[in-house]
Amino acid sequence: MSARPLVDHSRLSINTATTRAQWTLAEAIKGYATLGVRGISVWRDQLADCGQKEAARLLADHGMTVTGLCRGGMFPAATAAERQAAIDDHLRAIEEAVAIGAQCLVLVVGGLPKGSKDIAGARSMVLDGLSAILEFARSAGMPLAIEPLHPMYAADRACVNTMAQANDLCDRLGPGVGIAVDVYHVWWDPDLEREISRAGSRILAFHICDWLVPTRDLLLDRGMMGDGVIDIPRIRGWVEAAGYDGFHEVEIFSAETWWKRDPNEVVNTCKERYLTVV
Amino acid sequence: MSARPLVDHSRLSINTATTRAQWTLAEAIKGYATLGVRGISVWRDQLADCGQKEAARLLADHGMTVTGLCRGGMFPAATAAERQAAIDDHLRAIEEAVAIGAQCLVLVVGGLPKGSKDIAGARSMVLDGLSAILEFARSAGMPLAIEPLHPMYAADRACVNTMAQANDLCDRLGPGVGIAVDVYHVWWDPDLEREISRAGSRILAFHICDWLVPTRDLLLDRGMMGDGVIDIPRIRGWVEAAGYDGFHEVEIFSAETWWKRDPNEVVNTCKERYLTVV
Repeated sequence: MSARPLVDHSRLSINTATTRAQWTLAEAIKGYATLGVRGISVWRDQLADCGQKEAARLLADHGMTVTGLCRGGMFPAATAAERQAAIDDHLRAIEEAVAIGAQCLVLVVGGLPKGSKDIAGARSMVLDGLSAILEFARSAGMPLAIEPLHPMYAADRACVNTMAQANDLCDRLGPGVGIAVDVYHVWWDPDLEREISRAGSRILAFHICDWLVPTRDLLLDRGMMGDGVIDIPRIRGWVEAAGYDGFHEVEIFSAETWWKRDPNEVVNTCKERYLTVV
Repeated sequence: MSARPLVDHSRLSINTATTRAQWTLAEAIKGYATLGVRGISVWRDQLADCGQKEAARLLADHGMTVTGLCRGGMFPAATAAERQAAIDDHLRAIEEAVAIGAQCLVLVVGGLPKGSKDIAGARSMVLDGLSAILEFARSAGMPLAIEPLHPMYAADRACVNTMAQANDLCDRLGPGVGIAVDVYHVWWDPDLEREISRAGSRILAFHICDWLVPTRDLLLDRGMMGDGVIDIPRIRGWVEAAGYDGFHEVEIFSAETWWKRDPNEVVNTCKERYLTVV
């Protein structure tokens, strides 16, 4: 059932969150490229610090494929003015994604508005927000990748928590919207195989890391591939069976472990594990 | 959509986990009863410490309704011998539940066996384990309450993570098996209303607490009702619409807050919040 073993690093991407405690965006581009990694996913705050033109130049000079810009989203808010501000900010995010040639804009859709207990209402706001930016994204040729987040983030980060919800949104919205599948968020889902198959060509990105036992922090204790309990090759096999043939993007938030290591060691570990446990 | 406000404490139950850092089982029985709470849910380790006969006597003397015995479960294991040991232990748990007149035996079904990444396999072991104890439970007249746990516990506590999965298991197993609905575990589920309706008379218990933002610990940072983001009256309304008219059981694991308070204050806070936010 599992996918065939990976034999080289040609489709390995690293999300700069993985080394963000150690490297700036410019350092990460140079560092990854030096170590033979040709895919990168970029965060907007790091892009702003580097400067968009300088980043685009560095990415091109090092032959990097930008597998995503992180991130849009956070649509729900208590007031119409705040929701409009989120929409306006998305148009800028789409322009930034185009400027650096990103393959998609990754969307962490947002959780409950402050003071709200209405998760169904928040989910409606996500649909409204996506609808409001979709035409602009289509015109710009920038695919929007909804990333379902683990249910433990439903309150404060994303109220889209399963592949089924993301697929339902794609059904509603039509072309221009797809899905970022992150094994950390979806590995537990009993409907995962079916919903990955349903997603098919909507799959715009595939993110990897591992679920540690125990997990000591809800946000910043993700594991390196192989150190946890996720059967990554099995999920990769499902994603490939659905037609996905893009990069595999490592995204590890790890305050106590990987963010404290030499970033070269982190990247080399990603490379090793990529060929053995992904 | 929400349920009618609660007007008295006649259906309030407290799970002894809520005061386990402060009170033994005997103290909890006396403490809850003194403060006018007539429902209690009991843990097996506390029951063993107290002695089964003494506990049964105290519960009866104080007119307590035992809304559950916590807990059975933990079916998956690496070896057949370990899985059989879990089954054997369940037969004892069922006998204990009968001895104290519990309304159900609550099952936390277990996660991945040590060293395993096969969550589908773990789920099969859960079905096998339930099948193995069901006849005994039926003969004893003790309902088994499968408790779907939040997906953040899929690896180490329960690989049944949604109401849909619990309903599917009940469909497979037939009479004698039902569901314990805990708002903490299921509040995020986009299919919750539908799956509660589907559960109908299978609902054997209804557990309440709250999801805090931020949540600082995956296990021991549950909130008092009203301090978090769960719309409890709405979920209670769905459970009642499905036909449930039993107790509402407060279960709060809270190492840094409620386990450090005077247990009388904890119980009184449960009583106050019960009439205002549940």
